[in-house]
Amino acid sequence: MDGWHLVAAVIYAAGGGYKSLERDIFANLSPLDHRYYASNPELFDDLARYLSENAFVHYQLLVETALVRALAKRGLCSASIAEEVARACAEVSPEEVYAEEELTHHNVRALVNCIQRRVSPGARPFVHLTATSVDILDTANALRLRRVNDEVILPGAAALLRVLIDLARRERETVQIGRTHGQHAVPITFGFAVAQYVSRLGTRIELMRTAARGLKGKMAGAVGAYNASSLFFADPEAFEAEVLAELGLEPAPISTQIVPPEYVLDYLHALVSAFGVLANLADDMRHLQRTEIAEVGEAFTATQVGSSTMPHKRNPWNFEHVKSLWKEFTPRILTHYMDQISEHQRDLSNSASGRFIPEIVAGLAAAVERLNKVMSRLVVDHEHMQANLAMTAETVIAEPLYILLAYLGEPKAHETVRLLTLEAEERGLTLRRLLVEQPERFPFLNDMTDEQREILAHPERYTGRAATKTAQICGYWENKLAEMGL
Amino acid sequence: MDGWHLVAAVIYAAGGGYKSLERDIFANLSPLDHRYYASNPELFDDLARYLSENAFVHYQLLVETALVRALAKRGLCSASIAEEVARACAEVSPEEVYAEEELTHHNVRALVNCIQRRVSPGARPFVHLTATSVDILDTANALRLRRVNDEVILPGAAALLRVLIDLARRERETVQIGRTHGQHAVPITFGFAVAQYVSRLGTRIELMRTAARGLKGKMAGAVGAYNASSLFFADPEAFEAEVLAELGLEPAPISTQIVPPEYVLDYLHALVSAFGVLANLADDMRHLQRTEIAEVGEAFTATQVGSSTMPHKRNPWNFEHVKSLWKEFTPRILTHYMDQISEHQRDLSNSASGRFIPEIVAGLAAAVERLNKVMSRLVVDHEHMQANLAMTAETVIAEPLYILLAYLGEPKAHETVRLLTLEAEERGLTLRRLLVEQPERFPFLNDMTDEQREILAHPERYTGRAATKTAQICGYWENKLAEMGL
Amino acid sequence: MDGWHLVAAVIYAAGGGYKSLERDIFANLSPLDHRYYASNPELFDDLARYLSENAFVHYQLLVETALVRALAKRGLCSASIAEEVARACAEVSPEEVYAEEELTHHNVRALVNCIQRRVSPGARPFVHLTATSVDILDTANALRLRRVNDEVILPGAAALLRVLIDLARRERETVQIGRTHGQHAVPITFGFAVAQYVSRLGTRIELMRTAARGLKGKMAGAVGAYNASSLFFADPEAFEAEVLAELGLEPAPISTQIVPPEYVLDYLHALVSAFGVLANLADDMRHLQRTEIAEVGEAFTATQVGSSTMPHKRNPWNFEHVKSLWKEFTPRILTHYMDQISEHQRDLSNSASGRFIPEIVAGLAAAVERLNKVMSRLVVDHEHMQANLAMTAETVIAEPLYILLAYLGEPKAHETVRLLTLEAEERGLTLRRLLVEQPERFPFLNDMTDEQREILAHPERYTGRAATKTAQICGYWENKLAEMGL
Amino acid sequence: MDGWHLVAAVIYAAGGGYKSLERDIFANLSPLDHRYYASNPELFDDLARYLSENAFVHYQLLVETALVRALAKRGLCSASIAEEVARACAEVSPEEVYAEEELTHHNVRALVNCIQRRVSPGARPFVHLTATSVDILDTANALRLRRVNDEVILPGAAALLRVLIDLARRERETVQIGRTHGQHAVPITFGFAVAQYVSRLGTRIELMRTAARGLKGKMAGAVGAYNASSLFFADPEAFEAEVLAELGLEPAPISTQIVPPEYVLDYLHALVSAFGVLANLADDMRHLQRTEIAEVGEAFTATQVGSSTMPHKRNPWNFEHVKSLWKEFTPRILTHYMDQISEHQRDLSNSASGRFIPEIVAGLAAAVERLNKVMSRLVVDHEHMQANLAMTAETVIAEPLYILLAYLGEPKAHETVRLLTLEAEERGLTLRRLLVEQPERFPFLNDMTDEQREILAHPERYTGRAATKTAQICGYWENKLAEMGL
Repeated sequence: MDGWHLVAAVIYAAGGGYKSLERDIFANLSPLDHRYYASNPELFDDLARYLSENAFVHYQLLVETALVRALAKRGLCSASIAEEVARACAEVSPEEVYAEEELTHHNVRALVNCIQRRVSPGARPFVHLTATSVDILDTANALRLRRVNDEVILPGAAALLRVLIDLARRERETVQIGRTHGQHAVPITFGFAVAQYVSRLGTRIELMRTAARGLKGKMAGAVGAYNASSLFFADPEAFEAEVLAELGLEPAPISTQIVPPEYVLDYLHALVSAFGVLANLADDMRHLQRTEIAEVGEAFTATQVGSSTMPHKRNPWNFEHVKSLWKEFTPRILTHYMDQISEHQRDLSNSASGRFIPEIVAGLAAAVERLNKVMSRLVVDHEHMQANLAMTAETVIAEPLYILLAYLGEPKAHETVRLLTLEAEERGLTLRRLLVEQPERFPFLNDMTDEQREILAHPERYTGRAATKTAQICGYWENKLAEMGL
Repeated sequence: MDGWHLVAAVIYAAGGGYKSLERDIFANLSPLDHRYYASNPELFDDLARYLSENAFVHYQLLVETALVRALAKRGLCSASIAEEVARACAEVSPEEVYAEEELTHHNVRALVNCIQRRVSPGARPFVHLTATSVDILDTANALRLRRVNDEVILPGAAALLRVLIDLARRERETVQIGRTHGQHAVPITFGFAVAQYVSRLGTRIELMRTAARGLKGKMAGAVGAYNASSLFFADPEAFEAEVLAELGLEPAPISTQIVPPEYVLDYLHALVSAFGVLANLADDMRHLQRTEIAEVGEAFTATQVGSSTMPHKRNPWNFEHVKSLWKEFTPRILTHYMDQISEHQRDLSNSASGRFIPEIVAGLAAAVERLNKVMSRLVVDHEHMQANLAMTAETVIAEPLYILLAYLGEPKAHETVRLLTLEAEERGLTLRRLLVEQPERFPFLNDMTDEQREILAHPERYTGRAATKTAQICGYWENKLAEMGL
Repeated sequence: MDGWHLVAAVIYAAGGGYKSLERDIFANLSPLDHRYYASNPELFDDLARYLSENAFVHYQLLVETALVRALAKRGLCSASIAEEVARACAEVSPEEVYAEEELTHHNVRALVNCIQRRVSPGARPFVHLTATSVDILDTANALRLRRVNDEVILPGAAALLRVLIDLARRERETVQIGRTHGQHAVPITFGFAVAQYVSRLGTRIELMRTAARGLKGKMAGAVGAYNASSLFFADPEAFEAEVLAELGLEPAPISTQIVPPEYVLDYLHALVSAFGVLANLADDMRHLQRTEIAEVGEAFTATQVGSSTMPHKRNPWNFEHVKSLWKEFTPRILTHYMDQISEHQRDLSNSASGRFIPEIVAGLAAAVERLNKVMSRLVVDHEHMQANLAMTAETVIAEPLYILLAYLGEPKAHETVRLLTLEAEERGLTLRRLLVEQPERFPFLNDMTDEQREILAHPERYTGRAATKTAQICGYWENKLAEMGL
Repeated sequence: MDGWHLVAAVIYAAGGGYKSLERDIFANLSPLDHRYYASNPELFDDLARYLSENAFVHYQLLVETALVRALAKRGLCSASIAEEVARACAEVSPEEVYAEEELTHHNVRALVNCIQRRVSPGARPFVHLTATSVDILDTANALRLRRVNDEVILPGAAALLRVLIDLARRERETVQIGRTHGQHAVPITFGFAVAQYVSRLGTRIELMRTAARGLKGKMAGAVGAYNASSLFFADPEAFEAEVLAELGLEPAPISTQIVPPEYVLDYLHALVSAFGVLANLADDMRHLQRTEIAEVGEAFTATQVGSSTMPHKRNPWNFEHVKSLWKEFTPRILTHYMDQISEHQRDLSNSASGRFIPEIVAGLAAAVERLNKVMSRLVVDHEHMQANLAMTAETVIAEPLYILLAYLGEPKAHETVRLLTLEAEERGLTLRRLLVEQPERFPFLNDMTDEQREILAHPERYTGRAATKTAQICGYWENKLAEMGL
């Protein structure tokens, strides 16, 4: 309890007013509040507008304002009272609320006291009337999550999607060896590889958008049965909908003291599964940047240091950072699966854990921004891509050869090609050369079409629909983004 | 490798044919395959039709059949060849495939060999033509997951939902004290408490249905670019859609070697979040069954033993079981968030982990069935419910009193009521009595409506919209189930 | 990158010196850095001495100091150079390092530059000589984790353990009904219930202590093979041990660029499993505080508000808070199991995630402190405890009855007692009464000892060794704490 | 409940006796019970001796046997009665217990009934006397986990460790480029890279051993207070220790109905963190097998198929399999952190989840065996290793150059070398060549020792202590294994 006294003392120190409690950011414990803030203050200031404690108090005040306005529309109080309360809400500061909480040990009661203290006695009864604390808290949370999603997360993700679309289009004809199991498989184009992420990220953007719009508020009272509001209204559910409509939200179909946890959980699933897509992209880029592969690289600034002892190193640290953030934030969704359990009409054991949701949102935002920067200046090394392709070009024709042989009636085509591959390897020949040398062994070769023979001769043309598919996916998502207004 | 030899030896032992590899179920390691199977063979036999290895091979054969039929429709082979292959597929047994895999060390190649061996030389080239292994595997998995969802999971969940609807309706007027923080709050009805689960489970049923219908197949080849199928078709994407249409599936918008992992992941999120709803329900029932609360109970059979040393015990072991299953299966979704990362055109590190997905599905099915049984015979102890309500009836009017006082202009209503509560406690009075005793202290009481005064006099009527909301939620979901054909 | 410019601008703004970057704490995103800091600034200021970014930079400077002193002891540089560097290290501020990092984009290089800039040209070569960045970072982390464990975590946990020991001793004879499955079982004492947590928490304290002492440093260079230090020393492993000995640490037996991740992981397991013990304790207290059970309670302050609309509520919010913190932090250990994978001689994907370890430590510290406060003023309601015990006193003798009957040769004792329990219930009798009524049905009763019959007559004496075991456990841990110097 | 009837019917069908319930393994749901069993029946039969349901019943019977023997030693019954019970225990089959459980709905009561039915009336009272079900179950579990650890897990892990020791020794002088961030760093030896895993796996073996030996039993009755055994003994704690000593176990210092969960949890942490070491090893080998790197390979059999459509592929599927198993089993530890919470003297919500622990043990055993096979026949491609090293040999001297320059007083050594590296790159020269060309730019070069200059000339000698450290680590663990009797 002493802690609160100390804080209050500091806050009160301004004498009369309330001053904010300033602290050196490097005294903070969360890297979000020191290192990541310091490295990207614009983004984190943006996020703080929704996710900080200041913001949370602000959003609670928005809900209190919506409530009193809805009361006025119903005629319980006058419009001028509603506006008096609204003005008071606009003035209350988080510092004041925290100082008050020292006395009440209850955050929403403190908030209400701070509002009431600023309005005339006649207005006081209408502050918070019919509401329970969680009506305010859960609604404020839904609102700020929806807004941070609409105003920070989706624009950021859409910007990244556009970077990926541009990259995929630019590289849609760039032949690259496809890799499965880390082994060369058959060719694709680099644009096609990127188009995978266009499609996967696009799909996650849609899901985050849908899930955020599905977030619900409530104004159903202490156990969700509208006990209190029923004292005043015959149709308290309609009144609930009116309050929430002031904020652009809809009520949950039914609530206990809390909104059913699944709406926030679905949103977190959308976030965390989007994070997984980013992590896979980062991992791919990281591996393509390996010294031996060297197909892509991050553009470095002139003064940047790769390693403190190895001055020649150029590390994919941005991609590694994204992967690492993913590892940090993904397991945290478990907390919220656990928070689906709240005993009876609620226990409070989801309260502290719910307060960490902003960290997950901020983590994703940071990863998106980081990828955006590094992908938008990605250097594609076409020469190395070509050289890597050439390493196995001769053997990758094994696949079309097998398929065509099988189609043309070679009874054990798969086995035949496998043995030919080994034979070619042993004799130091290319597979194609082997075919040409002994045409009598492969009578069916004559039955191939010209295009088919072309592919056996030019493995780099064996890219199927990579380029057209890339174009199609990019077009689809460009339109979709426009449609979503992003 | 020797393991395979042994298995193959056992399988071959039948001499010519293949015999199934039988084993005592109690030699199995997974409780799903011994204890839970033994306790519910009907359900687990049902599940095995989709989720066992037998089923998986069967579904792979369905995909191979769909492929050859689509080839025939395109004219690459005759309809009679397609039907010859289809007949072969209907005959291949998992045992045969496993025996073949001993030689190939590759499960889909083994499958293809087994099919080819059963058809005429002219038909062989058309088996598996243009496909890569994962085309078959991912498509088979999507199909069986969708079907087990439609045919086992959803019907089971719908049956449970109906049980809950019936219970909620039956108890919609039964007054129960609402509990927040494990403390008595204000009254609801027991039906209203159950209606929460009607709504939450209903919402999850919808999500499972949507997510399962969103599962995608693919027939896009080794790296997703239709390299092989492009050798035969100018429009391989259309061909892919045709193959999958044979199975009632749609292709992923774009694939690597694998279908993008998010479709299965979204389905698992639906499953696991449904599990959370069940766990919360189970937990609530468990606590309502506490000796001191005793508002509900499981009906026991005559010979059932509660405890080996405490013969008087009647434990909520079914509810505990459901909670325990939830703890087992929920963390497993992390595996699939991790499986979102697959390097480049795929690495195989999602293969073993993907094989455990059936365990999650089975776990949920078992929990649904268990809850279904126990909820359908739930004993509600109305007397105890009444008695518990009475414990705090006098103090629960604190809420309406505070709200009405505040509304009527009492300046510090919350504080006033809090102090009155303490005062009543100290003086051994009821809160209501305190009001009646000293009317002069509460001049605003006269301004209340009759209904409002009624509620202060009869706390058990302070249930707000509990009963009507219950009816509305039950009606909504009854219709919705019908609409979904469940 | 612009972010860094902004930060640097702010930092440089002081003109010449570096000023700290102050920010309103309520602008922070992590609840640890606003709400929990505000509610407990002493604890969080304590923690910040080890876990903030200021502290991390400080610990890195300690490692650089240790390194140069070890170099001097080896004669590579003079003692006066070592002390010159040590003085410089004492002066470098985190702000300066962050400003420098803007240019280098490399945190340890920035640190080294800041040190070098403060020393004479002749001393510069010896700053960081032979070290790689991670030598400094991993060693600094091991050191600060060990110290925060010794100086904050263990003293806090020991204080809580003492509170529990006192409580267990005080209540060691207080009979309480034992509960299994939420059902009354047979009696224990409340002290015995608390003694479980004495033993479990004590064991975790030992494990945290051992694991923290097992944390290792390294000074083995960029890939762990002492490549750089081998340029100067024939015995670089001995030199590594010397540097670390300056700090009271030991080197890992072998390293890559990083210390093997298992040491930190073992420590996190110790922390998180200690958290689980706290959560179980909190959960038990929460349930014992249920309105219907009411065996314990939190002491409330006079002005504290239980609920914003229900002024009569007295919620176990401290216990709920601890449970909630546990849900937040426990899943995070998964991140560090994932961080066991670092490719080859390291990839950087454990870097961001590693920076969140302080949050876990702080979460546990906050939970310990909270429990400490609430357990030390726990109100035990002996009357309610007694009353609850009385509810089922007559039926709990079922257990000794069954056991004694069985022992005395009653062939189906368990079944007999079960049926008797049902019979008693139906006839509205106590079990004991039933026995007394029809002695002819139970001839073996005569064979009991007096003590045995006593227990059947006085179920509250059927507490076995609860009291003595409590005393023994409390004594053991009191000694153990002394032994550990805690 | 009908399920049990069906099962019982099947079991009873043999008429009089009990027959085992056989089922096609491919009808099982868990891959452990079909695919992984089929691929490795020796290992899985081994595991089944401890981890199957058959084994669990068997271990429960061992505990019942130990109990009655301890009773006899105390003189409560005769030695011949104890042996009569012991013989009965040896005869009871799991099928019989399951059939009995159909009636009792209680597994341990069923077990006790099955034993009692086989002994004389005079012996019956002494079966299970003083015990509660969980005394038997928790003790049986501790015993079988300890044994499977000693007899399967540790020998398997030790065999793998020896394979790694052999490999590390064989390759201890084989120079390999060290890689950090996937980028070439400075050289190590391949043996040194393997030695990391020797040390990390060795450390985990020790931890698994310690943790398994720390597993505890109990014989403390229904709520842990020895209520029942106190009816017979003045020193029931001593009696508990005697029973457990029959089995080579020690009692927990204090129990509720269950053994405190931390002992099993610590063991699971040991298992899962060992799994992480295997996964890292597998991941490294996987990447070293990439087409472009090709430093290691799995030996393939002649008939093995790499890909169904790409006959030329040689995939690291064993390593991928191990990684995938790790992803499957690692998150499961969360279940057991959650199981630390058991309300009051226990709730049953850890029961189903506890039954899946064998899956984790089996998963690790499978991964160990798989790695053992593939690592023992790992092909190291020295030529490729050499070629990869050569790629960057000239630039890796940047590190020693920087360090030596710095040491020799070059004021901005790091920056100098970074710029030189860029300069060399631009001019198409090696770094060393650059130095040689313009000696006047680097006057300090003359101050180097011969050895130092040697390293700049022969980067492949810049491996520090890689070889000697490898030898030391291998020696240490070879001795340690011997010491542990493994």
